[in-house]
Amino acid sequence: MTPIPSRGYGATGSVLSKLHPIDFERAAPKADELLIDILYCGVCHSDLHQVKNDWGNTIYPCVPGHEIIGRVREAGASVTKFKAGDIVGVGCMVDSCGTCAPCAEGEEQYCEGPKGCTLTYNGPMKPDGSNTYGGYSVNIVVKERFVLRIPPELAVERAAPILCAGVTTWSPLKHWKIGAGHQVAVVGLGGLGHMAVKLAKARGATVTVITTSGEKEAEAKALGADEVLLSTDKKAMEAKELSYHFILVTIPDPFDVNPYVTLLKRDGTLVTVGMLGAYKKGIDNNEVAFHRRSIAGSLIGGVAETQEVLDFCAQHGIQPDVELINMPDINDAFDRMAKGEVRFRYVIDMSSLEAKR
Amino acid sequence: MTPIPSRGYGATGSVLSKLHPIDFERAAPKADELLIDILYCGVCHSDLHQVKNDWGNTIYPCVPGHEIIGRVREAGASVTKFKAGDIVGVGCMVDSCGTCAPCAEGEEQYCEGPKGCTLTYNGPMKPDGSNTYGGYSVNIVVKERFVLRIPPELAVERAAPILCAGVTTWSPLKHWKIGAGHQVAVVGLGGLGHMAVKLAKARGATVTVITTSGEKEAEAKALGADEVLLSTDKKAMEAKELSYHFILVTIPDPFDVNPYVTLLKRDGTLVTVGMLGAYKKGIDNNEVAFHRRSIAGSLIGGVAETQEVLDFCAQHGIQPDVELINMPDINDAFDRMAKGEVRFRYVIDMSSLEAKR
Repeated sequence: MTPIPSRGYGATGSVLSKLHPIDFERAAPKADELLIDILYCGVCHSDLHQVKNDWGNTIYPCVPGHEIIGRVREAGASVTKFKAGDIVGVGCMVDSCGTCAPCAEGEEQYCEGPKGCTLTYNGPMKPDGSNTYGGYSVNIVVKERFVLRIPPELAVERAAPILCAGVTTWSPLKHWKIGAGHQVAVVGLGGLGHMAVKLAKARGATVTVITTSGEKEAEAKALGADEVLLSTDKKAMEAKELSYHFILVTIPDPFDVNPYVTLLKRDGTLVTVGMLGAYKKGIDNNEVAFHRRSIAGSLIGGVAETQEVLDFCAQHGIQPDVELINMPDINDAFDRMAKGEVRFRYVIDMSSLEAKR
Repeated sequence: MTPIPSRGYGATGSVLSKLHPIDFERAAPKADELLIDILYCGVCHSDLHQVKNDWGNTIYPCVPGHEIIGRVREAGASVTKFKAGDIVGVGCMVDSCGTCAPCAEGEEQYCEGPKGCTLTYNGPMKPDGSNTYGGYSVNIVVKERFVLRIPPELAVERAAPILCAGVTTWSPLKHWKIGAGHQVAVVGLGGLGHMAVKLAKARGATVTVITTSGEKEAEAKALGADEVLLSTDKKAMEAKELSYHFILVTIPDPFDVNPYVTLLKRDGTLVTVGMLGAYKKGIDNNEVAFHRRSIAGSLIGGVAETQEVLDFCAQHGIQPDVELINMPDINDAFDRMAKGEVRFRYVIDMSSLEAKR
């Protein structure tokens, strides 16, 4: 079958890691696959980490993007859930082994197959091992099993961040059964943090935002936070010891987790979702053991969970706060995101990319 | 009321931290208290930490000992559960606020009162703030609420280690609901580790001992372990990635927890009970998040739990493996314990201490 021409923005190395236009091809859709024209793609902090090779595993060229909203152009012969013209989403994964215990339980993100799940970009495709290219592009070909319905209540230009920032914060809130009666703290108020506030509030929890920047106080309250705590204010932090059932940390870079551990109640759990590396310091087990606290981590969410959070957002009138940008502005957007200047997620309007659809 | 003369072994400073005989007085028992003649006292690694001021909070003179088996000499007027002549136990605590949520739930070890729980030694007594002196002595005065029944099935000279090593490993096994169908690893095979193996096996789990010393393999199997894994054998450790539902770490000194984290299954939990300080290295959240693992800590156990593990041991024929020593041999015993030479717990025969009872 004839490959599908595509165009995207990608990086060809970590040293000169500016993104620039790249022409490439996508394999033609098989019977169980969809060809999707991309309308919008969210800009995740992981995109920046991956482009810069911060995790040491980037395969260049790297075309990022895993918060994809598009319109089905073509559905393979065996596809039953979608048809041409449907508005759909693609999140962080495009494949998984499908047979291991996590896959069988709908937790494809924890796939224990030989290569784990296949990520939407920088995730070698099985079985041929070729690279995957993400949503900073005009189109994508994806298995039906990994394509999401976008409920009509969601604005098409705002829904993209639910596909990563949304499900990444939803999954731990659900797994640890967070809801009414729980005191929750969200550390960091970026793309993930702002979704965490909205979702935890809608689940019935009382939510405190912990941030380094006092200027974010009014914004946090506008998002629904009940309280704001400055992590730089030692006295305020001490006053909140033993206060939270659950702390969700969305800081994207290595940090010292100890000051947050002391804020947990007895039997409380802290979950780090933003940072995939080593904590800056060894955790003080004195603080952990004396109140039987737990430090955990969580990774994105499964396909079913992603659909669930999309439907939950539609039902509760939750939409990400986004700033629309054009594709050629991506390098500036990366700079501003690294400085924490975005409120709260950049979304690329893909009509701005000179198209070869 | 006339104070009770006592004699014990204690340290008067951290530099010259050898223990030597100390004469002191105990307050006469109040209506709700018992005067107990001490028969046996276990030697816990914490005793050594406290005497050496490893945690920076030792108040000298320090008379250690919180695995106490004794005989009631005198019961206060309002005491109902015990009478003179009864064989009883005293564990790690002798008081707590009694009104906070943890106390109300029978988890006095997590007391959130102004001073936390009062430890059996080095735990300032409320309300006068004076120090407490532990079981390396001929007698002790303790509130009825903190005194344990010793079931007659337990040998009086072997039961002491259940009061700390036993409940410290029992409490997390119970809290995390470990039993049949679970793969459990116990890291470190000392006083705590050997009790963890016996208790986890009796609860129905499959148990692997992880140790640095190959020489302990036969001993681990004799204790009931199904398997032994050498932490120094890189290939064997790699082969066990994603293998355990629950890992209980009993290493008493700061260590790098990362090599053990990778052994946990998805949603598995690692609990450190032996080491009350900072881990040597920052935990790699990549390994934590990619399988939604948890790192937790746990502290001794509540009074009711301590009674529960004593009764469980009686019911299942579990007794600690001990080496009896005389009180004057304690400094040698500390040296041998620090080198890991004890199999598996020293217990002091208190009749060896020239008595002032």
